[in-house]
Amino acid sequence: MACCGNCFCCRCCCSEGETRTPEELMILGEIQDEEDEILPRKDYESLDYDRCINEPYVELLEGMDNKKAKKYEAVRWMLMFAIGVTVGLVGLFVDFFVRLFTKIKYTLVADSLQQCSDRGCLSVSLLELLAFNLTFVFIASVLVLVEPLAAGSGIPEIKSYLNGVKVPGIVRLRTCLCKAAGVLFSVAGGLFVGKEGPMIHSGAIVGAGLPQFQSITFKKIKFDFSYFRSDRDKRDFVSAGAAAGVAAAFGAPIGGTLFSLEEGSSFWNQALTWKVLFCSMSATFTLNFFRSGINFNKWGSFQLPGLLNFGEFKCPDEDKNCHLWTVVDLAFFVLMGVVGGLLGALFNCMNKSLAKYRIRNIHPKAKFIRVLESLLVAMVTTVVIFAASILLGECRDLYSPTTHNTTLSGSEDINSTIRQFFCTNKTYNDMATLFFNPQEAAIHQLFHQDGTFSPVTLSVFFLLYFLLACWTYGVSVPSGLFVPSLLCGAAFGRLVANILKVKLGMDIYPGTFALIGAAAFLGGVVRMTISLTVILIESTNEITYGLPIMITLMVAKWTGDFFNKGIYDIHIQLKGVPLLEWETEVEMDKLTANDIMEPNLTYVYPHTRVQSLVSILRTTVYNAFPVVTENRYNERDFMKGNILVSNNIHFKKSSVLSRAGEQRRRCQSMKSYPSSELRNVCEERIATGGEGEGERGEDLLQQMLERRHAPYPNLYPDQSPSEEWSMEERFRPLTFHGLILRSQLVTLLIRGVCYAENQSSATQPRLSYAEMTEDYPRYPDIHDLDLALLNPRMIVDVTPYMNPSPYTVSPNTHISQVFNLFRTMGLRHLPVVNAVGEIVGIITRHNLTHEFLVAKLRQHSISV
Amino acid sequence: MACCGNCFCCRCCCSEGETRTPEELMILGEIQDEEDEILPRKDYESLDYDRCINEPYVELLEGMDNKKAKKYEAVRWMLMFAIGVTVGLVGLFVDFFVRLFTKIKYTLVADSLQQCSDRGCLSVSLLELLAFNLTFVFIASVLVLVEPLAAGSGIPEIKSYLNGVKVPGIVRLRTCLCKAAGVLFSVAGGLFVGKEGPMIHSGAIVGAGLPQFQSITFKKIKFDFSYFRSDRDKRDFVSAGAAAGVAAAFGAPIGGTLFSLEEGSSFWNQALTWKVLFCSMSATFTLNFFRSGINFNKWGSFQLPGLLNFGEFKCPDEDKNCHLWTVVDLAFFVLMGVVGGLLGALFNCMNKSLAKYRIRNIHPKAKFIRVLESLLVAMVTTVVIFAASILLGECRDLYSPTTHNTTLSGSEDINSTIRQFFCTNKTYNDMATLFFNPQEAAIHQLFHQDGTFSPVTLSVFFLLYFLLACWTYGVSVPSGLFVPSLLCGAAFGRLVANILKVKLGMDIYPGTFALIGAAAFLGGVVRMTISLTVILIESTNEITYGLPIMITLMVAKWTGDFFNKGIYDIHIQLKGVPLLEWETEVEMDKLTANDIMEPNLTYVYPHTRVQSLVSILRTTVYNAFPVVTENRYNERDFMKGNILVSNNIHFKKSSVLSRAGEQRRRCQSMKSYPSSELRNVCEERIATGGEGEGERGEDLLQQMLERRHAPYPNLYPDQSPSEEWSMEERFRPLTFHGLILRSQLVTLLIRGVCYAENQSSATQPRLSYAEMTEDYPRYPDIHDLDLALLNPRMIVDVTPYMNPSPYTVSPNTHISQVFNLFRTMGLRHLPVVNAVGEIVGIITRHNLTHEFLVAKLRQHSISV
Repeated sequence: MACCGNCFCCRCCCSEGETRTPEELMILGEIQDEEDEILPRKDYESLDYDRCINEPYVELLEGMDNKKAKKYEAVRWMLMFAIGVTVGLVGLFVDFFVRLFTKIKYTLVADSLQQCSDRGCLSVSLLELLAFNLTFVFIASVLVLVEPLAAGSGIPEIKSYLNGVKVPGIVRLRTCLCKAAGVLFSVAGGLFVGKEGPMIHSGAIVGAGLPQFQSITFKKIKFDFSYFRSDRDKRDFVSAGAAAGVAAAFGAPIGGTLFSLEEGSSFWNQALTWKVLFCSMSATFTLNFFRSGINFNKWGSFQLPGLLNFGEFKCPDEDKNCHLWTVVDLAFFVLMGVVGGLLGALFNCMNKSLAKYRIRNIHPKAKFIRVLESLLVAMVTTVVIFAASILLGECRDLYSPTTHNTTLSGSEDINSTIRQFFCTNKTYNDMATLFFNPQEAAIHQLFHQDGTFSPVTLSVFFLLYFLLACWTYGVSVPSGLFVPSLLCGAAFGRLVANILKVKLGMDIYPGTFALIGAAAFLGGVVRMTISLTVILIESTNEITYGLPIMITLMVAKWTGDFFNKGIYDIHIQLKGVPLLEWETEVEMDKLTANDIMEPNLTYVYPHTRVQSLVSILRTTVYNAFPVVTENRYNERDFMKGNILVSNNIHFKKSSVLSRAGEQRRRCQSMKSYPSSELRNVCEERIATGGEGEGERGEDLLQQMLERRHAPYPNLYPDQSPSEEWSMEERFRPLTFHGLILRSQLVTLLIRGVCYAENQSSATQPRLSYAEMTEDYPRYPDIHDLDLALLNPRMIVDVTPYMNPSPYTVSPNTHISQVFNLFRTMGLRHLPVVNAVGEIVGIITRHNLTHEFLVAKLRQHSISV
Repeated sequence: MACCGNCFCCRCCCSEGETRTPEELMILGEIQDEEDEILPRKDYESLDYDRCINEPYVELLEGMDNKKAKKYEAVRWMLMFAIGVTVGLVGLFVDFFVRLFTKIKYTLVADSLQQCSDRGCLSVSLLELLAFNLTFVFIASVLVLVEPLAAGSGIPEIKSYLNGVKVPGIVRLRTCLCKAAGVLFSVAGGLFVGKEGPMIHSGAIVGAGLPQFQSITFKKIKFDFSYFRSDRDKRDFVSAGAAAGVAAAFGAPIGGTLFSLEEGSSFWNQALTWKVLFCSMSATFTLNFFRSGINFNKWGSFQLPGLLNFGEFKCPDEDKNCHLWTVVDLAFFVLMGVVGGLLGALFNCMNKSLAKYRIRNIHPKAKFIRVLESLLVAMVTTVVIFAASILLGECRDLYSPTTHNTTLSGSEDINSTIRQFFCTNKTYNDMATLFFNPQEAAIHQLFHQDGTFSPVTLSVFFLLYFLLACWTYGVSVPSGLFVPSLLCGAAFGRLVANILKVKLGMDIYPGTFALIGAAAFLGGVVRMTISLTVILIESTNEITYGLPIMITLMVAKWTGDFFNKGIYDIHIQLKGVPLLEWETEVEMDKLTANDIMEPNLTYVYPHTRVQSLVSILRTTVYNAFPVVTENRYNERDFMKGNILVSNNIHFKKSSVLSRAGEQRRRCQSMKSYPSSELRNVCEERIATGGEGEGERGEDLLQQMLERRHAPYPNLYPDQSPSEEWSMEERFRPLTFHGLILRSQLVTLLIRGVCYAENQSSATQPRLSYAEMTEDYPRYPDIHDLDLALLNPRMIVDVTPYMNPSPYTVSPNTHISQVFNLFRTMGLRHLPVVNAVGEIVGIITRHNLTHEFLVAKLRQHSISV
């Protein structure tokens, strides 16, 4: 699939008779095993969540007093509020137009049906409906052609992003526009898709974009505000935006917060959590405010919690024996959880095969094929719901709507969405009631309709919906999966309730069973756990459903996990995203860091020539380079001859803090301190540690150091090192001092940060934090660099710009510790440093994916 | 307060003319500044949340396949369920007896009052009430004498524990028994205390105790199940137990889960969160099940959510213009938040002064003084509520209870708890209604009573309650603070509602204002944020209150934080617990790890003589020792002469992984692997790396190495080193290899794990994981060791038992990174290792407390 990231790192190992084993090749991602499994792609990068505290950042800090810090904090809170409000407005926009279009469509078609049934010409109505749906779906599909990332639910992408994977283009404004507009048309077009997933994605984009004050799509939008331009802040804002999206979609601010915590999963940061909750609340209540105003003309009150809510579950007041659920029901809920898990696994399995088929057969072809597929799905869906409603619907009695009307206050409009469709006055067509309504209304019907649905109708509805929803998810339109799953599951739950109540005569509350069915199927499909529980509890606004929903979801998840992964994880896997799991399996602790690290390093020295840097940058694809010095005992001899070597040796000496030195420093500080004579005792040392005078002698060591990369401007390294050098020479000990990113090196080169060989390194120009991050998030490429402007013999001192203190691990650290550190701190590169401070390898996300670990464990257990 | 932990660590620094500055002494905790501030005590230890993956643990892992891992996982789930059920039952027990006693008390006194009012002898009723209350409070107070840790709410202790501080005795069974029984009597005794805090504490103890299958109080309870005997597992279970306590107390399982996450705050672990939520749900529903059965005789249904719930807030059905709240009200909520914050700050300030007074004047005295204080509080409280009810209560009209009776179904029994107290038939005594009821009933009255309370009554009630509750919290009885704060705040809120509705004629819902008042005051006192929001939302069972509650709590917290800390944090500070905050301030990043680390190290070698170990253990109080080797260039000369030195040098050599070596290993493994010829190429190296033959020569180095500690059995070190050695000698470079805990060393010594000098270290007996953890959590003391049984010349090889890969930081790591690593990973000791692998210092919890960092920053800014 993609091996470009790996071409270099393993080329020079095993020089003699290299025949790599299938397992190795599999680990390297260069072949795929017989099951056509898609392995994590190497070209996905991690986000840099851990702050790089280098000199420019420290300078920024020095200028930061508590007052300024509070100002930034206030800006953060305001941004959170702005994100919440914006996400709420996006939700409002989508909701308003979906309602409008759907209403127009159903009204026209219902009128036509009414007239047609008299004249017996159903096909005209069908054509009308088809015209509407195909037009809408066509628009949605074209919008996805404009921005392919707008397809699907977006939750896999957001999950990947929050997990720490940089998915290019996923948080761009254009994606947001296409997604929000697209989902509006795909839902209005009658496809079996939800708008919740795309809402969450849109929310995340709003979160990513708003605090940057700039856009790539609209280049004019640009303010000079660099403070939040780092992966760390961006990811925090994306968390908030995604949470706001959930909050707006489900009216579940707590659930939304938990969703982004669950997926984001860096260390628990109270301040951030609090802001995310605030952002979610803002979104919920913005939406609530405007919807109450627009739909009920009650401006200033807050009556409609979220886009999706489940209505009020309550027993009629006069029925004192009614329970929403009892202990006995719990047993059925567990069974329903099992069935929901099985159905969900089946759904996922079918959808996975379909998705693979699409990847192989549809995606490589011309783009309009995708549009055709969308149109085909829309046509089949339309014909099916039309035919099923007309042919298979049964006329059912309304549940004595006159006598009980007063008690139904909570679900007062439940009978406003029934469809009669050729049924007599006091009856309704149950199939049409489910199919010829917005999905939310159909869910309400299943949850709260006291009238009955025939078991046949429910079964047929479930089956058709299951198959069509499965086909639809993956078509290139924006398409959520929550609402279809809920509706499908609710039909299943209502079917169970029907059987228990009518056939077995049990005293149950059918709405509860419909709800549990919905939870079971949804849980079986998506397998999210804690946040889903909370979202469902919040949507029902009934705390007493907590236990049954939780147990059902747990059972459904366990059952489903027995067969395959959740639908989002499947799609993440199909995209080849190197997602990190929650934790490693216990078995993996048999491995240690040195079993999984990448031992082939491309490194830079603290002071390096421009030509070497350009060579390294142009001939490798690594994103970070360890900054190292070599351990040579005969350093003294070289020191006088060459300023580059001498600088590096000076750096090494000054970077090592010895215990005695530190103790001396402390004592001096303590002595000088009470007497307030602030003699700077360090001055002396700094003065003596200054740079010597440059001599341009080209000595042997110098040649050797730079031979690795062929002379500038011939940028391809010769094939020599692996042949000429012994293993000891190639893998000579390197003391680790810090990490520098590719983007930082390119920025240094482009801005001409270097000094001439005959000058001191102090003459090198200094960049500020704002200058370093100006190009975020799209740093220039090394190939855009005009080599003519650079003097290859100049020396770059990278030490002020490197990360001088990344987290490191020792080679014998066990995997669970490595994994926890990497995942929790949101790292991108984790150097492995041995007991004497030499770097022996580097661990990235790709070395910690489940697939890689499993392969390594297999290798380990064979070789032991 | 306590400087014993620090006597050794700074004695030998600054040998010449040591005059330590006040700042240094303050940092050292040896003096207290003029404000009598209590600094973190040095004798609190951190929990070991990070797993020590040493050889016994790896052996345990080797025996662990996925099946066994699943078994342990299943045990974990079952334990979570058991904890939940037990906590629910404890809650049930407390609730049942509180209700019973309170009912008996109020019934008897009300009867007596009824009779007395005819005969005009109120004093008899007063005496009856006094007799009841004093007896109950006496019992509660005596129970606290039995176990002093049972006093107070327990939340500060649980917060400390979850923060990672080992508070001795806090999770013992005896504490739980005294607390649960004590709170029952203190609540029944009419004190202004709640049962929620003690419930949470009891829950945490259940969580800590149940999975250990052993108890110190009852020594007979002991099963052989060592797997969960580690600080890590224990803390996870305590989190679950505390969450279950919250869930049972408030009927808020999600809030409970968030509470323990917020306080526990290690990395987000989905599996754990999920289990905690399950545990909380179990507790809620156990309680719910039994209370529904016992109180309503509806076994099998779940009608009563939690011990504290706020009833149903809803508008009367016929009133279409009624809103629970509108946008306009939000402005008032913000103002109420400010006032709540101010009142809370005042409450905390008064309570803090009182607590300090108690620490100085009451605690040092005889214990029965504390009982007397409790009795005094009980007496004053009783007299005050009696007098206030009789003298200051007003007779108010019932809000037309006959016509609206049907609509009040949600709060059907709201009129069953009014008190008439000499008022005529259709009126009630408003003061008595608030005072002569359980606190929960009084809260219900304030939230839901449609009748009015006079502003004077509310003001007097608020004032009296405020003062008495403030006095009561800290008296030596088990006493929560939630319910008193809620009640006090509800009175304030209702007062605001009265003014707005009656005086200004606004159309508001008084219950909402009472709720917001309660939230504002509670928020001002305790300052918990996210979990409190969720707990209150769950208790109201009304999602639409989310935004107002959140905004109120936020404003209250910000206002209060302007003056002082939350009440729990104040009490934690008074106890001198070294709590770690959520994150460090931005300013602190001006410091780096070497500014705050402790540079004076007491270390051990990989192979050390028994006599050295005993010396070190007996003469220091450190809980962990770095395992180090020295960097000497003339090692070769010593190798032949002495097996101890030679072993240490061998260890050093074998522990350093070089890049070339690793590469060779990988290539060999790759070569051997496809051909399946599992030649173990490593054998050779291991064989050659074996132990030489021992010669017992006592050479110079040997003497020097062991001179630091005087010869066995004279266990006190001589005063020599600081005088004889130069700084370079004392702080000579030490290569870091691992950490070993005091408890591990003591266990090794007690179990005789050592080898004779003339034998190979392979002859040393090996301990299993179960043997190493058998004594958990109370490891034997070094002073219990019988020295006669030990041969001082034997050598202990600590390498299999040390933690070979603790997380480390480099000296120039900035504080925010150090802090995040330490707090998130739940560390106890964090070695600071420089660029060449030498240990230069160690960071513990005490180096990261706010007080320490502030002092260091001040020192830093002066010396720069």
